[in-house]
Amino acid sequence: MISNTMQEQVKNSSVIRAMFEEGKRLAGIHGVENVFDFSLGNPNVEPPKEVKNAILEVINTGNSMGIHGYMNNSGYEDVRAAIAKSINDKFSTAFTQNNIIMTVGAAGGLNVIFKTLLNPGDEVITFAPFFGEYRNYVKNFEGELVIVSPNTIDFQPNLEEFKEKITPRTKAVIINSPNNPTGVIYSEATIIKLSEILNEKQKEFGTDIYLVSDEPYRELAYDNAEVPYLSKYYENTIIGYSFSKSLSLPGERIGYLVIPDQVADYQNIVSAANIANRILGFVNAPSLFQRVIAKCLDAKVDIRTYNRNRELLYKGLSSYGYECIKPEGAFYMFVKTPIENDVEFCNLAKKKNILLVPGTVFGCPGYVRIAYCVAYYKIEKALPYFKALIEEVK
Amino acid sequence: MISNTMQEQVKNSSVIRAMFEEGKRLAGIHGVENVFDFSLGNPNVEPPKEVKNAILEVINTGNSMGIHGYMNNSGYEDVRAAIAKSINDKFSTAFTQNNIIMTVGAAGGLNVIFKTLLNPGDEVITFAPFFGEYRNYVKNFEGELVIVSPNTIDFQPNLEEFKEKITPRTKAVIINSPNNPTGVIYSEATIIKLSEILNEKQKEFGTDIYLVSDEPYRELAYDNAEVPYLSKYYENTIIGYSFSKSLSLPGERIGYLVIPDQVADYQNIVSAANIANRILGFVNAPSLFQRVIAKCLDAKVDIRTYNRNRELLYKGLSSYGYECIKPEGAFYMFVKTPIENDVEFCNLAKKKNILLVPGTVFGCPGYVRIAYCVAYYKIEKALPYFKALIEEVK
Repeated sequence: MISNTMQEQVKNSSVIRAMFEEGKRLAGIHGVENVFDFSLGNPNVEPPKEVKNAILEVINTGNSMGIHGYMNNSGYEDVRAAIAKSINDKFSTAFTQNNIIMTVGAAGGLNVIFKTLLNPGDEVITFAPFFGEYRNYVKNFEGELVIVSPNTIDFQPNLEEFKEKITPRTKAVIINSPNNPTGVIYSEATIIKLSEILNEKQKEFGTDIYLVSDEPYRELAYDNAEVPYLSKYYENTIIGYSFSKSLSLPGERIGYLVIPDQVADYQNIVSAANIANRILGFVNAPSLFQRVIAKCLDAKVDIRTYNRNRELLYKGLSSYGYECIKPEGAFYMFVKTPIENDVEFCNLAKKKNILLVPGTVFGCPGYVRIAYCVAYYKIEKALPYFKALIEEVK
Repeated sequence: MISNTMQEQVKNSSVIRAMFEEGKRLAGIHGVENVFDFSLGNPNVEPPKEVKNAILEVINTGNSMGIHGYMNNSGYEDVRAAIAKSINDKFSTAFTQNNIIMTVGAAGGLNVIFKTLLNPGDEVITFAPFFGEYRNYVKNFEGELVIVSPNTIDFQPNLEEFKEKITPRTKAVIINSPNNPTGVIYSEATIIKLSEILNEKQKEFGTDIYLVSDEPYRELAYDNAEVPYLSKYYENTIIGYSFSKSLSLPGERIGYLVIPDQVADYQNIVSAANIANRILGFVNAPSLFQRVIAKCLDAKVDIRTYNRNRELLYKGLSSYGYECIKPEGAFYMFVKTPIENDVEFCNLAKKKNILLVPGTVFGCPGYVRIAYCVAYYKIEKALPYFKALIEEVK
């Protein structure tokens, strides 16, 4: 009775869902504190205090119709202006409110922009490993996701293969840095080279290719690492941002799109994205939280907590003989499985109450993703099991 | 550069958008207080005080990770259980949390359910006049909206024509009562007859036809009018509810779907709708407001304000010779235009700074929609212009 597309999409969702159910089952048997659920990217660091203060300030001083009512589908104009200013201050850009559309998180923003851009059969390129939901977001609008195979040396994009995979049907490229699942930040050199290739191919094919930058992890960068702001490198850049991780508000569904003036067909894209926001059923980003985040643009979560987890986990796993790249951002570690089959390795881990996501989900078999946005003691308690696990299979 | 579908959808959105821009332009020239904008269904009655109290209670007593974090894509289990109980108490139903999926407003819920159900070419029937967005929601999933022509006697659905328009491709029927744009409540007799026809046709074609009930106006019923609860009349009923109007929270995007156990293929539909909520980019209904509405299930806006507006407007327009049905619910009045062309009438009204939406937008030319969710004085001030308008054209 359900649609054919959904039947397929339900089937493809079964891995992570099964993991989720398994986690609940195991917690029921062994107690939550003895189950090590590294499968979910759900922040465990409190929102900064500015968030609660902002909520109180808005609801105590605002006019309730202005707080909870409809506004332009793109969001409150003053909120969009505040965001534009904040980006300009940080990155020396020159955006105005007319470049910003408030969205229901980054997931909402990406659906809005693909709805706006994609005709059936249009190709969207991404680099493995990649956030598995891109498959769905592109398929929602009958686009075709073209996957560039992973560079497992340093997990920077494989630009040689990228060049070959661009065709006259390439409408967009989607990248995600700091990256889920690797934690790698795409370097400035990567971005410059990637932009050169895109410009070359645009010229060769006489097309416009939009670079969509999915940036929920921008603020989670360790050791003061810089995350290049892409619109400064490539004209046809569109940015999807989210406050889910920067302010630990994933449930509130608040983010925005940046559509710079310089983007080809700017005016039509902005108009269409405004309408897409409405007709996809978002209508607008949640109103109270638009006002709240506008008061928290300089705040961010305390990433020292994630950093401690990162150090502990990386040091532990490396010392046991696991191969992995030390993450530069986000809260994921991508680890080579000591046996070839990543799904099988996840099943072995599950027997020790450790929940992981197989790399297959991210288009990169032979690896697992560990989401270390968990309590420190969980990592401490889990490490001996990771040790036992590698000893068992070696 | 934008997609072909969006080009079409942008074009079709131009009427109301043009009206919106025109309103801003006129307000700039004549002052906001001299422009009579009856074009938007934006509630003007304050949310009940319970809403602010609930926000304060949640953020002052809750754990911030539990308030703003991710949860199951269907929403918090305790919130869903509270909603099920509240519906059961009011309508003697027997729902549980497993029948409720929290959504980003009713618009989000309708997109989720159509994504779940529709294959390309599937037909969805609706009754004119109808909320124009249904065109988009159905088209988003390549369905075909089949329109039953209006019964302009009393604006109950035209069931004779309905019967003829059901085919083996009919996957769903969408209705909206209290109705936007007429304010009419579909009577119990209508619902019984409609259910009989659906059961008959399901049997004849060996298909399942889902009745989707779009209910943002359920709580806005005047004179204690009853709005039948549809799952009690027809087994394959799915309900899309929203708190946008009942609690005056349209900007917050909070609503839910009810998928009863008795619905054909219940288990698959519930699983698929959960995943559709995620992959369409909603991910989940905004988390704080899930908790807030759970504390406000017995509250509703003071509809006496809308009722006063209704009485004043209806009495005034009728006395000038306008033909209209007195609304039984919602905050819209649907008025026959004294000249045949409704778009032309709207243009004439605009010259008097009155903004209306032509019936054409709702599939019912020759009428206009007046949204009377405005300050009382605006109606008082506008009435003489309505009088002048009908005198001019008669």
